[in-house]
Amino acid sequence: MRIGILGGGQLARMLALGGHPLGATFVILDPVHDACASAVARHITGDYTDQEKLKQFAGMIDIVTYEFENVPAEAVEYLATKLPVYPPVHALAMSRDRLYEKSLFRDLGIPTPKFFNVTSLDELRQAAKEVGLPAVLKSRTLGYDGKGQAVIRSMDELENAWSSRLAGVDCILEAFVNFKREISVVAVRSRAGEIIFYPVGENVHSEGILRHSVCSLNDPMQKLAEDYITRLLNNFDYVGVMALELFDTGGELMANEIAPRVHNTGHWTIEGAQTSQFENHIRAIMGLPLGGTSPIGHCAMINFIGTIPPPAPVLEIKGAHYHNYGKAPVPGRKLGHVTVCGENQKEVKAGMKKVLALIAG
Amino acid sequence: MRIGILGGGQLARMLALGGHPLGATFVILDPVHDACASAVARHITGDYTDQEKLKQFAGMIDIVTYEFENVPAEAVEYLATKLPVYPPVHALAMSRDRLYEKSLFRDLGIPTPKFFNVTSLDELRQAAKEVGLPAVLKSRTLGYDGKGQAVIRSMDELENAWSSRLAGVDCILEAFVNFKREISVVAVRSRAGEIIFYPVGENVHSEGILRHSVCSLNDPMQKLAEDYITRLLNNFDYVGVMALELFDTGGELMANEIAPRVHNTGHWTIEGAQTSQFENHIRAIMGLPLGGTSPIGHCAMINFIGTIPPPAPVLEIKGAHYHNYGKAPVPGRKLGHVTVCGENQKEVKAGMKKVLALIAG
Repeated sequence: MRIGILGGGQLARMLALGGHPLGATFVILDPVHDACASAVARHITGDYTDQEKLKQFAGMIDIVTYEFENVPAEAVEYLATKLPVYPPVHALAMSRDRLYEKSLFRDLGIPTPKFFNVTSLDELRQAAKEVGLPAVLKSRTLGYDGKGQAVIRSMDELENAWSSRLAGVDCILEAFVNFKREISVVAVRSRAGEIIFYPVGENVHSEGILRHSVCSLNDPMQKLAEDYITRLLNNFDYVGVMALELFDTGGELMANEIAPRVHNTGHWTIEGAQTSQFENHIRAIMGLPLGGTSPIGHCAMINFIGTIPPPAPVLEIKGAHYHNYGKAPVPGRKLGHVTVCGENQKEVKAGMKKVLALIAG
Repeated sequence: MRIGILGGGQLARMLALGGHPLGATFVILDPVHDACASAVARHITGDYTDQEKLKQFAGMIDIVTYEFENVPAEAVEYLATKLPVYPPVHALAMSRDRLYEKSLFRDLGIPTPKFFNVTSLDELRQAAKEVGLPAVLKSRTLGYDGKGQAVIRSMDELENAWSSRLAGVDCILEAFVNFKREISVVAVRSRAGEIIFYPVGENVHSEGILRHSVCSLNDPMQKLAEDYITRLLNNFDYVGVMALELFDTGGELMANEIAPRVHNTGHWTIEGAQTSQFENHIRAIMGLPLGGTSPIGHCAMINFIGTIPPPAPVLEIKGAHYHNYGKAPVPGRKLGHVTVCGENQKEVKAGMKKVLALIAG
């Protein structure tokens, strides 16, 4: 089966690496000429809205998937008239807009922080009174890795936050959640409606970017997280991998956001689970039986952001697996990750500590 | 690091799939325009002896490896004048010639079936008397997957076997071994001389082609197999993965042949070991620390030869991982394999049985 991927970054690269053994072939559409997935897939270099390129792309593939939710809607809608698109277009549309996303959480009975739609400074002032401060002003669309977000701690900061928002993008104001920890659950739904789950990850962000994620075996919140993501998956008649990020406020989970795709907090599954999230996404969209999600021992994933250490010192760490995405270094850019596997949590923590020391230089 | 691979078949393909995460990039040289590794590597389409293509290839890479031992000697020798070649050229030269290979086994004190060099029908008759019948006439070079071999059961068959040998290729006559089982050990040696081993595999061949291999945990012959391959690895100051095939005659091992490369009997390591033979070969030749070889549970590998079943029924089998090499079906050709993983040997055997039933149709 010929699979097209919108976007040719590291997620597309790992999808192709995971999917080739299944006999799939891959074509990526990405405007960047050296998109890192092009090392393992055919590459159409073109803008997502270039009709000619989209037509060429559509002619080379049997099904379409995507590696990021901010892919232009018109590109996906055009492709959907020609080919099956997985995950479904309506899940993508929803995840692209925080207002719709949070409204859906509410409709499905999934707790989420209080939020208001704001289209003017006046509405922002009103919302701040309703939600209380601190609160977070978030662009409804185009935000990722902390971009398009501003924490507002006092009424004085409202005006500044409003004028600094992404130009021309609507916003929501969202209550600031005092969480104990951030977790995420990654699940896969097959075309036949079967749903399977990976163990939740415990995530640490900094400057809005995921730094590391520890696979949490027998987590007390596992079942609740599975319940919430199941509601979302079934709501969309979803096909493929979905991730749901949640705040754990201590006995309660509040949904933060969903990603209708393979997710950074599921990268540990390459070495740490019976079947990786990447292979399972490809299995799902190809209409194949899903693979086991059971963890193989304990593990954690640490991102390389902005700079990447050379492989040798990383691989000297017991149980370490190195992933270099082949991207040029840019501050704040995800360039690779390392998975540390071990027989117990202590071994994994010791390995993580060494990796973090390497990153700190 | 830019790695060149001589040959673009499934071994090159799996080397590239295993090596991309390490940040390596891959160029294959292969005369076949649709060589299956070209899906995951740059491809120079050209003959191994084409000086222009070899020069172009050498200019695109930092180090060279190979996926088969029958690569023309002059190609490797030319490349070795320009770039590091791993595994070392003298290991390749030895493995290419059964006479040298078996003489080395003898020199290193590794038991091997009795053998004689034969260059004429008269010498063959003499050798048959010395070795006894049944015996196997094997071409010294160019043999693989049972090609270039003939079992001789009576003196009447000598003439026919001699006239049917590969034209212009010298032969050896080798004693036929009544083995209890065939096993193989796959080992990796780093540039620094560190050697690590995978658990031995128990192999079943038919018509000279490997059909399946079962990873044998705590095998009574493990240590002896490790001892023998260590002698070979150190003899060559070897770098990379080597496989040694052995006959187990019941308490004694006799070396059959070595492969100076990743090996079909090590394919189970992709899902079944902490680090695959492919990643470890790339780690070794890049000069990186090697990865753990411990098995993850029990597993077995079954080849798809001549035809390949569709993925769905294979993946319905618990613990099954499907590998389609993307090659056109030809009788006797290795088109893919399946790894069956399980918590115990019984589970693996049950899965294997289902796969074998699927293959039988």
